[in-house]
Amino acid sequence: MSAAQRVLDRCDELAAVSAIEHGIERVHLSPEHARVNAMAAGWMTEVGMRTWRDQAGNQWGRLEGREPGLPALVLGSHLDTVTDAGRYDGILGVLSAIEVARRLAPRAGDLPFALEVVAFSDEEGTRFSTALMGSSAVAGNWHEEWWDRADRDGTTVRRAAEAFGLDPARVHEAAREPAELVGYLELHIEQGPLLEAADRPLGVVTSIAGARRFTGRVVGQARHAGGTPYPRRRDALVGASEVVLAVERLAVQRGGIATVGRLQAFPGGVNVVPGLVEFSLDVRAEHDEDRDGLVEAIRAHAEEFCTGRGLGFELTEVHSAPGVYCDAGLTGSVTAGIAATGDTAPLRIWSRAGHDAMAIAAITPVAMLFVRCEDGVSHAPAENVTHDDVAAGLDAFEATVLDLAARRS
Amino acid sequence: MSAAQRVLDRCDELAAVSAIEHGIERVHLSPEHARVNAMAAGWMTEVGMRTWRDQAGNQWGRLEGREPGLPALVLGSHLDTVTDAGRYDGILGVLSAIEVARRLAPRAGDLPFALEVVAFSDEEGTRFSTALMGSSAVAGNWHEEWWDRADRDGTTVRRAAEAFGLDPARVHEAAREPAELVGYLELHIEQGPLLEAADRPLGVVTSIAGARRFTGRVVGQARHAGGTPYPRRRDALVGASEVVLAVERLAVQRGGIATVGRLQAFPGGVNVVPGLVEFSLDVRAEHDEDRDGLVEAIRAHAEEFCTGRGLGFELTEVHSAPGVYCDAGLTGSVTAGIAATGDTAPLRIWSRAGHDAMAIAAITPVAMLFVRCEDGVSHAPAENVTHDDVAAGLDAFEATVLDLAARRS
Repeated sequence: MSAAQRVLDRCDELAAVSAIEHGIERVHLSPEHARVNAMAAGWMTEVGMRTWRDQAGNQWGRLEGREPGLPALVLGSHLDTVTDAGRYDGILGVLSAIEVARRLAPRAGDLPFALEVVAFSDEEGTRFSTALMGSSAVAGNWHEEWWDRADRDGTTVRRAAEAFGLDPARVHEAAREPAELVGYLELHIEQGPLLEAADRPLGVVTSIAGARRFTGRVVGQARHAGGTPYPRRRDALVGASEVVLAVERLAVQRGGIATVGRLQAFPGGVNVVPGLVEFSLDVRAEHDEDRDGLVEAIRAHAEEFCTGRGLGFELTEVHSAPGVYCDAGLTGSVTAGIAATGDTAPLRIWSRAGHDAMAIAAITPVAMLFVRCEDGVSHAPAENVTHDDVAAGLDAFEATVLDLAARRS
Repeated sequence: MSAAQRVLDRCDELAAVSAIEHGIERVHLSPEHARVNAMAAGWMTEVGMRTWRDQAGNQWGRLEGREPGLPALVLGSHLDTVTDAGRYDGILGVLSAIEVARRLAPRAGDLPFALEVVAFSDEEGTRFSTALMGSSAVAGNWHEEWWDRADRDGTTVRRAAEAFGLDPARVHEAAREPAELVGYLELHIEQGPLLEAADRPLGVVTSIAGARRFTGRVVGQARHAGGTPYPRRRDALVGASEVVLAVERLAVQRGGIATVGRLQAFPGGVNVVPGLVEFSLDVRAEHDEDRDGLVEAIRAHAEEFCTGRGLGFELTEVHSAPGVYCDAGLTGSVTAGIAATGDTAPLRIWSRAGHDAMAIAAITPVAMLFVRCEDGVSHAPAENVTHDDVAAGLDAFEATVLDLAARRS
């Protein structure tokens, strides 16, 4: 079996570990999370790595370099998913990293650094409406207020962590020191259509846009749908609907990307005017100042519309990541790695999607390599990659590590 | 204790029987339904009624008239609720009917009809997204396809009925013959602001608007919120938001009432473009032809907008009730009943809300009496009535029955 086929088969194996019957959902600190961590640990062990799970639920493996205890080059991504996810987002990066470790294991004793693989625990933020909790802990940026964040069932991060076998008092032990690290490399599907449009299997990432995420509420008054004349209605869903349309309109006008992905009206009776709508808002742009301007434009429009309707409008920030520029040196190695596969001037892409690399950039240089995905679809069951693109990705990823090793030797 | 105070206290007692911790939710064929039926049966027995539960889950009580087996005048309403309901919608009518039975019990032997009280099992349609199932069964209009209708957990009406102790094969036994009945009278809170604006405690209902209810779907494509450029997005929530705004705009333009009460975006990830939105639509107007025109205008606009966006739009009718005119004779007795409380020219109102009376009208003449409610609020915890208005309602309800008895003697 080819290495790429093994990676694809394991993507399928992990896809079967899901909290939902039809489709994939695997969230932070869930039983499914424990199971895929154990599977990844098994695969890491199989290629000769020493493995451990840290106090933030991330799964690690390590191969020593030419002497024990050298700073590590970390290859990784995440194993958690969105709801009704595809099978490659994050997962492909973790499994490719393990495959690169397999290839380099016989030669690890020649490397001027240790080689580590990490499977981060919470990149998507699906369960607790925040993101990058796993990699933030590794970067020493754990936020104490995260402990009290609750999922939809009211379970807090603290309780979920304890149930997972973690000790909240020891989360700081997950943090790595800059001196322990050489850098961080992440392979990821593009999650967009640019590589496909350019007919290239791989691309090099220049920067990662920082998303800001919010939970929003429109507050009206629940009343009987028949008996309440229009002038007396304070329909929270009418307010929220105007907000959704404005989010798209303003993002297009200003060249950013803004999305309302989650929205629900309450109490939700067929014959009741909605008194409350809760929704999420995700805002991105290539440059942080453009993104922040878009947020304020959305807020101003929503407040004006809602006030005019007698509705309350609240927007609460739950996540904010500054945009991150990839390290020039590491990115040079990625470019060289892709060049080794035949594309000597790879496409340079700014990542519209967030990645664990953003959090890790706080403590070590980062770089990223994108693999083409079908029709640019991601965060959906139709997410797809080809065997040949995965094979090219593995070759480029391995060549990137070797280029870096050569530069540092 | 005054009779009105007893009614209000019992409204509080029933309000405590709820499937949700904070607030009231009591749906068809639930454990809470069984419990309030038993409580109502106890109160009916206490005033001397013979009681039984029919094969549609409705709770009945009967006082014989001047001879056994006479056709019955039925007083009633429903005990089921919307989600996060108030404590008077339906409930006040059932408890007032029992109170009228208490007052008339000593004189029942003089009445030219039997007096029955009914507590209908499903007026709101909260659980199975249809409405009037209980009263439709009594009217002999049970729809066989209702058995397979499922609640949010996938439990069908059939399974729920069996768990409730009913035999689906015997639902037809709940049907009453026209010859067994004299008529049906229902007291209900107005669920609108007209009585309050007119400074009157009571009103007489001229007709009941027939609602049509739909479940709707906007189908797009779930994709990564960051990686998908706007021209490639097929955002189901943007389509649904336009529909919500159009529903209000068209209803106001055409003088009808249309409401999207339930709406949720799927898969619901903060960083995923919604691929599906499910929603409810409720449409009413004073005249059925105006209502039907409004439905078609909404459908046409939604289809045009969604098609232009590459979105699918589906609207499936789940409930349709023709508007019903109240019986002139019975309404004359209601008018006389209200006049006996001092308001000799009571306000005449067409009911924007649906009521069990609509279904019962298929087999016997119906009439209704409205009681003022605070600020017109209904289907919400703030639903409220005053002691004095309830007292006036009881007096008028009793006087209505006596007026009818006098006319028929």
